[in-house]
Amino acid sequence: MPEISQRGQHMPPSPIRKLVPYAEAAKKKGIKVYHLNIGQPDIETPQPMLDAVRHSELKILEYSHSAGNESYRRKLVHYYERFNIQVNYQQIIVTTGGSEAILFGFMACLDAGDEVIVPEPFYANYNGFAVAAGVTIRTITADIESGFALPAMEAFEKAITPRTRAILICNPNNPTGYLYSKEELEVLRQLCLKHNLYLFADEAYREFCYIGRHFSAMNLEGMDNHVILMDTISKRYSACGARIGALVSKNQQVLDTVMKFAQARLSPPSLAQIAGEAGVDLPVDYFDGIKAEYLSRRNVLVEKLNSIPGVFCPAPGGAFYAMARLPIDDADLFCQWLLEDFAYEQQTVMMAPGTGFYATPGLGRQEVRLAYVLNKEDIAKAMLCLEKALESYPGRTAAITAARAANQG
Amino acid sequence: MPEISQRGQHMPPSPIRKLVPYAEAAKKKGIKVYHLNIGQPDIETPQPMLDAVRHSELKILEYSHSAGNESYRRKLVHYYERFNIQVNYQQIIVTTGGSEAILFGFMACLDAGDEVIVPEPFYANYNGFAVAAGVTIRTITADIESGFALPAMEAFEKAITPRTRAILICNPNNPTGYLYSKEELEVLRQLCLKHNLYLFADEAYREFCYIGRHFSAMNLEGMDNHVILMDTISKRYSACGARIGALVSKNQQVLDTVMKFAQARLSPPSLAQIAGEAGVDLPVDYFDGIKAEYLSRRNVLVEKLNSIPGVFCPAPGGAFYAMARLPIDDADLFCQWLLEDFAYEQQTVMMAPGTGFYATPGLGRQEVRLAYVLNKEDIAKAMLCLEKALESYPGRTAAITAARAANQG
Repeated sequence: MPEISQRGQHMPPSPIRKLVPYAEAAKKKGIKVYHLNIGQPDIETPQPMLDAVRHSELKILEYSHSAGNESYRRKLVHYYERFNIQVNYQQIIVTTGGSEAILFGFMACLDAGDEVIVPEPFYANYNGFAVAAGVTIRTITADIESGFALPAMEAFEKAITPRTRAILICNPNNPTGYLYSKEELEVLRQLCLKHNLYLFADEAYREFCYIGRHFSAMNLEGMDNHVILMDTISKRYSACGARIGALVSKNQQVLDTVMKFAQARLSPPSLAQIAGEAGVDLPVDYFDGIKAEYLSRRNVLVEKLNSIPGVFCPAPGGAFYAMARLPIDDADLFCQWLLEDFAYEQQTVMMAPGTGFYATPGLGRQEVRLAYVLNKEDIAKAMLCLEKALESYPGRTAAITAARAANQG
Repeated sequence: MPEISQRGQHMPPSPIRKLVPYAEAAKKKGIKVYHLNIGQPDIETPQPMLDAVRHSELKILEYSHSAGNESYRRKLVHYYERFNIQVNYQQIIVTTGGSEAILFGFMACLDAGDEVIVPEPFYANYNGFAVAAGVTIRTITADIESGFALPAMEAFEKAITPRTRAILICNPNNPTGYLYSKEELEVLRQLCLKHNLYLFADEAYREFCYIGRHFSAMNLEGMDNHVILMDTISKRYSACGARIGALVSKNQQVLDTVMKFAQARLSPPSLAQIAGEAGVDLPVDYFDGIKAEYLSRRNVLVEKLNSIPGVFCPAPGGAFYAMARLPIDDADLFCQWLLEDFAYEQQTVMMAPGTGFYATPGLGRQEVRLAYVLNKEDIAKAMLCLEKALESYPGRTAAITAARAANQG
């Protein structure tokens, strides 16, 4: 029997999805599972987007242009204008989800053995694209006490080697929800100019900022040839299954190279591009309601978390994730235990263990990522489950034991 | 300015799409261009597939399972049964087009520097996936005189090195239209078992066989751990823009490894999976009419081609492509000239130069690939253009000059 590749063996399983079999088993036992483990919003996809597909006059589901339909790309120009990002339609390549934008960026800009610096904790699937491209992810650790602010410039400088070719940033951040400031992006600008690095900017959660305005890497001065924007409509319109994203850059060489990869896979999905195009035409106040909803969910989640003895959760400035530190021995064991051995009033909660978001061994063992993609009532119920679980979890640490003693005292 | 990757520099542009700017310029001059260059059928996508999307009750365009919707995979089991391919739904991973099935197969089974043997001429986009995966394509040349039959076992044996890990076959073949027989597949089976190789089988054109029944690599005995089927609904249902394919295998290790790559990109497109599922429910005689149509187009194309002095085109047994040898100096120059400098009654024809389908330098210079994806009337008009063009093309070879002299004599 032929062997699978080394690359395939090194490929990490998704930390977000690996607990799925335990959740399925729990459901079969009649237990209600609150899914805070994955960024799949419960918000409905805007009706006009689905209607655009339903009413399309399409007779042949043809290949689109490899860079995406020109009509859609021209629309996207206006979408970006609203965020003060000035690009023309030829600087936009429509991709199959943000995932493909990341893969294309890696493929076009990095060779096997090259290094990309990412602050950790980071979106775990970057690992997958790095393995596919043979690229090494080097991390510098952000601190939960600071709310996961950008590490100091010195930490980046230390991590830079002769093989470093890029810095990758997710803003607002998945998994931490941290919203990087203009000043923090200026630090990255200086580093990229000094060391001749690409800046990969994953701005999938641009719309969801709760503490001020989003500053795009595309607006960093003198960085036109350095910045590669990786984008998606998945979260923006609660359209994760559309698989429509975009790679945007002003670097013509990068665009030309990405186009060769884009042509090899022929085209992004045609039906979902119709939905994406309709998305740009939504009234601009569409996001006001959505943002208010996420903000109130965030507030419930963070307040509840911080009210549980021994738990600490910095308030996220954007996206719809929070990282929390729990008084536990091991987040992987705890998250599995929650599904396998625990239920409170026939309910439990599913979260993503923190370890999957760190590259440094041992980090994240007391952290979990929670996606606040459920309504407030369900979030409150999920938090009650978590509180009860922490009271009875055999692997709870001294911190909570002491806290409980104090509460009972 | 940071440099693009070596990988990106090595990435070949698509030979099928690189003449597009010339075609656009011709159209701007008011010239009608017959597109025989690309496998985009003019056949309508079956109405029930589009209706299934239109009538779907979907409220949230959610991620699907990373392996595709279970309901769709269960349906596909029945689809494959019709071709006597026995698989269960867990042996099917739905991909974003056949393209992604090829990429995933390469990623899971091959490491950078590994070699895959492909008979040439071959589907040019394999190059793109090979570059992405760092894999080397080694070719053995099939002969136009034999209709591009499988080269002899000895030719394969000669090409095998210690780095050879797989053989890749497209059956029926794109670009040649050759339909490999059960006996030819038996040769590949022996080679794979003897040298412990994977057999990647791209069977995108399974439905379109004009000279007997398709024999799937999945039915080769003792090859369960070797065969990786790469499939797509693009051509089957004239649904190229759906971007729905599948990787099918009985090798559990390969499936597990491919799933890790599938999870990293989250899921295949949700809307188009609905269309794909409806496709399986089409009446089984749906293909009879389509096949008859392609067969009659093939007959017109091949007959017309072979009636042009100096042209030779073996009749393809399947798919909807033909490779023809033309009495010209250089197919790249000729195909460009057709768009830039030629018109007959304000019409011209666009074809894919043969060179793009060969890895061996110099081969294919007198060949072109023609996709018979237009109606018979248009094919006949396109062939008239080709005939007239060959009469006036400055780079015509002695063969046609002599032929013309003979005709006039």
